[in-house]
Amino acid sequence: MLDSHAYGKLEITGSSKNSIEEAVQTAIKKAAEKVKNLRWFEVIETRGYIENNAVSYWQVTVKIGYNLED
Amino acid sequence: MLDSHAYGKLEITGSSKNSIEEAVQTAIKKAAEKVKNLRWFEVIETRGYIENNAVSYWQVTVKIGYNLED
Amino acid sequence: MLDSHAYGKLEITGSSKNSIEEAVQTAIKKAAEKVKNLRWFEVIETRGYIENNAVSYWQVTVKIGYNLED
Amino acid sequence: MLDSHAYGKLEITGSSKNSIEEAVQTAIKKAAEKVKNLRWFEVIETRGYIENNAVSYWQVTVKIGYNLED
Amino acid sequence: MLDSHAYGKLEITGSSKNSIEEAVQTAIKKAAEKVKNLRWFEVIETRGYIENNAVSYWQVTVKIGYNLED
Amino acid sequence: MLDSHAYGKLEITGSSKNSIEEAVQTAIKKAAEKVKNLRWFEVIETRGYIENNAVSYWQVTVKIGYNLED
Amino acid sequence: MLDSHAYGKLEITGSSKNSIEEAVQTAIKKAAEKVKNLRWFEVIETRGYIENNAVSYWQVTVKIGYNLED
Amino acid sequence: MLDSHAYGKLEITGSSKNSIEEAVQTAIKKAAEKVKNLRWFEVIETRGYIENNAVSYWQVTVKIGYNLED
Amino acid sequence: MLDSHAYGKLEITGSSKNSIEEAVQTAIKKAAEKVKNLRWFEVIETRGYIENNAVSYWQVTVKIGYNLED
Amino acid sequence: MLDSHAYGKLEITGSSKNSIEEAVQTAIKKAAEKVKNLRWFEVIETRGYIENNAVSYWQVTVKIGYNLED
Amino acid sequence: MLDSHAYGKLEITGSSKNSIEEAVQTAIKKAAEKVKNLRWFEVIETRGYIENNAVSYWQVTVKIGYNLED
Amino acid sequence: MLDSHAYGKLEITGSSKNSIEEAVQTAIKKAAEKVKNLRWFEVIETRGYIENNAVSYWQVTVKIGYNLED
Repeated sequence: MLDSHAYGKLEITGSSKNSIEEAVQTAIKKAAEKVKNLRWFEVIETRGYIENNAVSYWQVTVKIGYNLED
Repeated sequence: MLDSHAYGKLEITGSSKNSIEEAVQTAIKKAAEKVKNLRWFEVIETRGYIENNAVSYWQVTVKIGYNLED
Repeated sequence: MLDSHAYGKLEITGSSKNSIEEAVQTAIKKAAEKVKNLRWFEVIETRGYIENNAVSYWQVTVKIGYNLED
Repeated sequence: MLDSHAYGKLEITGSSKNSIEEAVQTAIKKAAEKVKNLRWFEVIETRGYIENNAVSYWQVTVKIGYNLED
Repeated sequence: MLDSHAYGKLEITGSSKNSIEEAVQTAIKKAAEKVKNLRWFEVIETRGYIENNAVSYWQVTVKIGYNLED
Repeated sequence: MLDSHAYGKLEITGSSKNSIEEAVQTAIKKAAEKVKNLRWFEVIETRGYIENNAVSYWQVTVKIGYNLED
Repeated sequence: MLDSHAYGKLEITGSSKNSIEEAVQTAIKKAAEKVKNLRWFEVIETRGYIENNAVSYWQVTVKIGYNLED
Repeated sequence: MLDSHAYGKLEITGSSKNSIEEAVQTAIKKAAEKVKNLRWFEVIETRGYIENNAVSYWQVTVKIGYNLED
Repeated sequence: MLDSHAYGKLEITGSSKNSIEEAVQTAIKKAAEKVKNLRWFEVIETRGYIENNAVSYWQVTVKIGYNLED
Repeated sequence: MLDSHAYGKLEITGSSKNSIEEAVQTAIKKAAEKVKNLRWFEVIETRGYIENNAVSYWQVTVKIGYNLED
Repeated sequence: MLDSHAYGKLEITGSSKNSIEEAVQTAIKKAAEKVKNLRWFEVIETRGYIENNAVSYWQVTVKIGYNLED
Repeated sequence: MLDSHAYGKLEITGSSKNSIEEAVQTAIKKAAEKVKNLRWFEVIETRGYIENNAVSYWQVTVKIGYNLED
């Protein structure tokens, strides 16, 4: 019942060689292996590593909310 | 032994149609289904949804500390 | 005269199925329907919704500055 | 269409002699006189005035999101 | 005279078994035993202790402003 | 009635060639062209532009609270 | 001895009809009536009241450090 | 493959009678009982309890990143 | 009675030639000369002075909570 | 030797007409003209300019860490 | 070309016996001895020293942006 | 002359296998190879790497202030 639903939150860092968006998708895919019913995310931090004076990969940390009722 | 005790922290969003306090209680009850020995909480964020120009339910996110020794 | 110009600021959340950049563009387009002379923006928050373990759409909140003189 | 929806955000301070929740409801009611389609809120700041060593009224500032499409 | 009035600020944590509002009232009552002419408060932090998977008491930290002229 | 009064908040950036205080006054004057019953402000950000190694003008962003009842 | 000196900190809000600097000076003068050996300050918040669409007075909150040894 | 690796993050509070560093080590040791492949940490908060006017123990909260691939 | 206990908070900067921990202990010892029943602390800021390219002393600011009932 | 390595940090704002990622790459390329051995970055701020109701270019500020030993 | 311009950022603390504005001008003048093409600044922190219960000088920390292309 | 002195600020991350304090000392020593007249520092961030479930080294980021007049 909606009166007392609740959401858990996971913090996960995903990475990608290509873009911030892809790093977020990586984080979500990994989260889905641990918990079910993922609902939303918030970007907490955007970082990355540099090789040869270019971004070698993006590292984006997200908090992911998931439904605890299901 | 107290010299090296430790606490885990869960972040959970609880909701309630009635009050901020009830939304926190919802979050704690849900946390108790996942881990034991809950000790304290801190309110991180207070939000809510609006229907017909009134709060339809409160959503309060708390960090909950629990004892890792037990 | 430049001595006493001023800018208003709007806070708007735009969304997109595809990218953070497109969600910002959506927010700017909507702002343009409300006020004129938009000048700059700052990203305040990047969030999104998840369906089937993937981002269903991006939600980016921006503060948009617009010239009050015109 | 969902692909490009957007939300405006209003910041409003509501007050109440009785509780934080009632102060939020006041803010929402006042927002509804200015814009339509209110959807959600976030509490930004909780303050209040003191008379005779007791809270004389609560002042709660909320950001209120409303749908720009309607 | 208003030209140069000033306010001191006290930081106090009050608690209550029942509600956030009551914990604030406790903090204000205690502050009143230390200084006179309390004027306003701001909530800094909302925490609490948990016993038997429920809030045993709320702990709310407030900054309280008081008039230094009187 | 005081039990349920409310304040709107505007965010405006004012500028001045001379001082931070004058930039705030500019912002308030511009706000007064948009809404009535301005009551208080808070400084959010102080920035400025540089020409010939000196401040060419100050840019101060304020949040301005105004009474919604009148 | 320098090895173990300590500083107390007071938080005080000073006001002035004229400028931010004068409001800080007001706060310091009031602090000097309460404690001795004031050493430094940090500006925490700059606010003010508005009357007739102009600043009626500035309110600046400072943390003031004072030497506890003397 | 590095293109899409991800890290989980745990938040744990460790304590020690002796030092901040030892409290961090306690937190890491406890985290290692829950998850494998710990990689890095960030200190979030340093607190402690006082008995007889001295620190009785240090409480340091860390976020710990661990590899989700292994 | 626990239902309405309260804690005051002092902000004090302690220093030490040797370590962060010792600077905190200095702050607590000084606080104990001003108020009784110290209970806990939180580290707010860690700074220091440099002489001859080395730390000459550490300056750590703590908020110290003390029981107002006793 | 690893025991005492150190990193410098540069703060640089890069821009791009096309994307946030490209603006970061611009910042890194410019940093590489000033210092060697760039290792990682963190995004500090994402802003941009608006022309004709669309983003004319993205401005992303990054802190870039580089190895001081080489 | 505008597509890929970049700005460096310097953090400098300037001081003045007279005002916050003059302390900022001092910081900018000193920055101009180190780098060329200064463009804008943001005030990061306003502090000061106290002697004889009055401000002896203001210390204002600014981040200064300068054009890297020239 | 004191009326217009100024300080530059460097941000440096130092590391150590042993302690937070030693990591700060490493950062200061490295800073001294780049600029003269170091005066003070503030700790910005404390992180570290983990190997075999223990801290392999501490990484502490400091802002270091140095005198620009000398």
